[in-house]
Amino acid sequence: MRLSELSERSGVSTATIKYYLREQLLPQGRRITATQAEYDDSHLRRLRLVRALIQVGKVPVAAARDVLAAVDDETLGRTVRLGAALWALPRPPDADPTAPATVRAREETEALLTELGWDRAQDLGDLSPSYRTLVTTVARLAELGYEVGAAQLAPYARQMEAVAEHDHDALAALPEEVEKVETAVAATVLYEPVLLSLRRLAQEELAARRYGL
Amino acid sequence: MRLSELSERSGVSTATIKYYLREQLLPQGRRITATQAEYDDSHLRRLRLVRALIQVGKVPVAAARDVLAAVDDETLGRTVRLGAALWALPRPPDADPTAPATVRAREETEALLTELGWDRAQDLGDLSPSYRTLVTTVARLAELGYEVGAAQLAPYARQMEAVAEHDHDALAALPEEVEKVETAVAATVLYEPVLLSLRRLAQEELAARRYGL
Repeated sequence: MRLSELSERSGVSTATIKYYLREQLLPQGRRITATQAEYDDSHLRRLRLVRALIQVGKVPVAAARDVLAAVDDETLGRTVRLGAALWALPRPPDADPTAPATVRAREETEALLTELGWDRAQDLGDLSPSYRTLVTTVARLAELGYEVGAAQLAPYARQMEAVAEHDHDALAALPEEVEKVETAVAATVLYEPVLLSLRRLAQEELAARRYGL
Repeated sequence: MRLSELSERSGVSTATIKYYLREQLLPQGRRITATQAEYDDSHLRRLRLVRALIQVGKVPVAAARDVLAAVDDETLGRTVRLGAALWALPRPPDADPTAPATVRAREETEALLTELGWDRAQDLGDLSPSYRTLVTTVARLAELGYEVGAAQLAPYARQMEAVAEHDHDALAALPEEVEKVETAVAATVLYEPVLLSLRRLAQEELAARRYGL
């Protein structure tokens, strides 16, 4: 398809597509004349992912380029490609590792991972930004006066494990490796606001069911 | 306790506490002399909630005052107090209700609620900002090229129902009504970043388990 059709099918203006091409967020099309290039479904998919990252995930352009480089790096295994992509997403700055609240948060996180049997997450430890984000979040809550330990976290973690199982299962049907990685990254970002609004709605539903309207 | 002890026990500076008192985010203490007031555990709890709302929930001061007014309104039932408090939290502006993506998102949301048996949420419908946020989020995804229907949403909604069950169960042990409402509001806000970081960590754990490191 031509640029105009790519724009129409994606709902992204040609100006924005050209900007993404310049910023290397979208691979160049196959050049067919000096002024025209041909795009295919892989461009359409990539364009969706770029918008998901930038507009929903609030990922800065430079970080989006890192995410996409990881998605495209076929020399890496799927876990590392996925991980590298997820790790480029924005997250809060790490808590001071020597602060007492951080030390306690780390202990509780370790106790949680042991209880859950999340061995790989435990092996990765601080290498994983997701691990550091969890420690930082728990430390932050303690500083606000809400001490949250492994016992409080475990039920939530088990639910999120079920969510992640579902996230991974949804990839099985996709044919290409790059599509699996792209979809996994998009799903992480796109379902975050969905999950939070479903939780608030579920809280209302259950409150009304338990305590009346 | 005096202001200085309230500051020490909460980790909030006396200047910030005075600001919260002036802004009516914190009820006045019991006046004991012309210049001193006495505070109790209810002030400490309220101070924690205010910080949770403002620092984690990014709730503007005026909205925080609305949340707290709902929490304190003893003429309302628990569901309404909880609801009014949750409804004052920040959320994205509603999608244009006449846009085709919004119309479809509303149909899918209705189909989802029917499938789940969330009757109260369905009865409330547009009256609930949580319902409108879900419709808006689903419409947003469709505009980005990700059509998400009731079938895709249902497994996530069931997990979030389990999370909300757990949220509500945690309140049962609290003695006072105002404490239950305060805790429910705090838990909604505080566990949102926890849930998202647990999901990302679970995704890594499962990827490593399924596909190796």
